[in-house]
Parts: sequence; structure tokens; C-alpha cells
Amino acid sequence: MSERDYTLKEAMMFSQRIGQLSKALWKAVEKDWQLWIKPYDLNINEHHILWISYHLKGASISDVAKFGVMHVSTAFNFSKKLEERGLLSFSKRDTDKRNTYVELTDKGADLIQEMIEKYHDTPHTVIDGSLPLRELYGKFPEFMDVMAVIRNIYGNDFMEIFEASFKNIESKFSEENHILESKGKTENAL
Amino acid sequence: MSERDYTLKEAMMFSQRIGQLSKALWKAVEKDWQLWIKPYDLNINEHHILWISYHLKGASISDVAKFGVMHVSTAFNFSKKLEERGLLSFSKRDTDKRNTYVELTDKGADLIQEMIEKYHDTPHTVIDGSLPLRELYGKFPEFMDVMAVIRNIYGNDFMEIFEASFKNIESKFSEENHILESKGKTENAL
Repeated sequence: MSERDYTLKEAMMFSQRIGQLSKALWKAVEKDWQLWIKPYDLNINEHHILWISYHLKGASISDVAKFGVMHVSTAFNFSKKLEERGLLSFSKRDTDKRNTYVELTDKGADLIQEMIEKYHDTPHTVIDGSLPLRELYGKFPEFMDVMAVIRNIYGNDFMEIFEASFKNIESKFSEENHILESKGKTENAL
Repeated sequence: MSERDYTLKEAMMFSQRIGQLSKALWKAVEKDWQLWIKPYDLNINEHHILWISYHLKGASISDVAKFGVMHVSTAFNFSKKLEERGLLSFSKRDTDKRNTYVELTDKGADLIQEMIEKYHDTPHTVIDGSLPLRELYGKFPEFMDVMAVIRNIYGNDFMEIFEASFKNIESKFSEENHILESKGKTENAL
């Protein structure tokens, strides 16, 4: 092992911080997530696979696994179940014969759309817990230091998918606003 | 539901951010943690209970559950197993007859001490992934915005236990340094 320029004490303090915070944060996110998806008979992995397929407009199983932080076999097995329910379809791409891709069926896309519309039917403690920061800074927190750590651990690929998902949300909502505007009911849209 | 001063788009973007980051961060922490405790035949909940008991110098089962972000029954059942292995002991306090307290036995304290000494025998990706921030800022990141969110979700109690654990690490290491200094081998200590 190479020499470290930080002490064991520093490592213990930081390990305690990141361990406690990440566990507490994830458990809160998980609870909110479970309440949100409960009416739809989906578990978190299944919903996460649909969500990733939606935002990436189709994704390889290995991208689903990477971005969903799950084993490839988990991603594959749950994708199969979603296919059986008619929410997801499997395909090969001409440009990439080796990987299996999944994408949402129309039924899957409708389900995700419905879930987004019903987002506020269940409590979201992580949103509520972030509102004071939003008031303070004028926007929701971005957790830039966490992002830097995640980039170092999971690599640039992971962050590219992350950014792609934001762009997709951005464009989906612009489209919807556009449609709603042309229907003249923007004021109730959001 | 009261009127919201943020849009559904903002909620979706933030939900995506906090969901992805917290899952990825926790999975990395969990993996590091599992590798660290593997030689000791403990699961994460069991080690977390020992860790909390160590840092709080004894804790009520409800504090263990709160700070360990686990159900009270989980905290109780795993504490019982640790008691059977002679690592933890149960007691009542005269000042608080209603709660059950746990504290480390000498055997439990020796185990935790040994694990701290062997911390660097296994990889810690979250430490390694945070080193570039440490180089940039001169210290490990503190994740202040995550702390603010956690405080809002879990309350001041949670943060007080969090702070107490830091003070304990601080004082443990000062003691040890002091002992080692008096033995004249500080240079190899950390």
C-alpha cells in the first residue's frame, strides 16, 4: 500500500460522515420511492429500469445495470418480467449486435407518464427537506461535491447518462408546455 | 395539497438527481463496508449497532434504530445476536427505566478497535473517490447541503448523535496519540 497523506483519524471521520449521510439519504429516497410506485405493483428495480429506458429512449441492459447501480443479471431478469407485462420490449441494434437493448412499449410510456402526473399524490420527504435550501439559494441543491465523488467512483460514462436524463426531462417538459400552450391551458399545466 | 412554488419539472429534475446520487453513493459505501467487515462474520446492521454503541458509549435501542436508520425491531433483534456472541450487553438505566440500553463489552470494544486498525486492509472507494476534493480544498468534503436535507428529514436529534460521534472519534484519537507519544512512537502511529 502506498503512503497516504491523510491520517487514519481523518479517514474514520470522513467514513462516518459519508456512511451515515448516504445511508440516511438513501433510506429516505427509498421510502418516498416505494410510496410513489406502490399503486403500480412495481418494485424499485423494476421502476428504475422503466425510468432509465424512458429517459434514455431505450438503453442497453449494461447501461441499465450501470446507471441503475444493479447487477447485470438483476437488470436482465427484471427487464424480462417487465417484458412479460407488456411494459418493455427487447431488441438488438444493427449498429451493436452484441448488446441487448430495452425500450418502453406504448403501454410502458403511458404508465411512466401517468406516474409523473401523480407524483404529488404521495409525500416526498426529500423534496420537502430540500425546500429550505431552495428558498435560500433560489433553486434545489445540486450536491456538487457528491457528484464529484460519484464521478470518481463510477466514471464519466455514469455522469454522461446522468446528464442525458436531465436533458430528456428538460425537453419532455418543453414539449408538454408547448402542446399545452397551444391548447391555451398553460396556467394549469404544472 | 397546498400550492407549490416549484414546478413539476423542477421536482422531477431534483428527484432524478437525489435518487441517482443517493443510490449510487450508498451502494458504493455499502460495498466498501461489506469488504471491511467480511472477515468478522458481521452483517452491516450488526456492525452499525456495534459502531453506534462504541461512539455513543452505550445507546438506547431507540437511538440505535434512529441513528442506524433501521426499524426498532431490527435494532433489537441484531443487538440480541451480538449479546449472544458476547460483543454487546443489555442494561436499564436508573434515570430512564423505560428504555433498554446496549453497550459494548470489552470483547466488543477490542473487536471495533481491531477493525479500525485494519481499516486500510480493504479498499475504500468512497475515500479514494474523495481524494481529489481533499487535494482541492485541503480537507475531505463535508456535504453540507446533504447535511441540511438530512437535518430537515430526520430532525435535530439525528444531527446531535451525528455530532457526538465525531467528538468521540476526535477524543479517541487524541487519547491514542497521547498514549503513543508517551511511548515515543508517534511517527508510526497513523
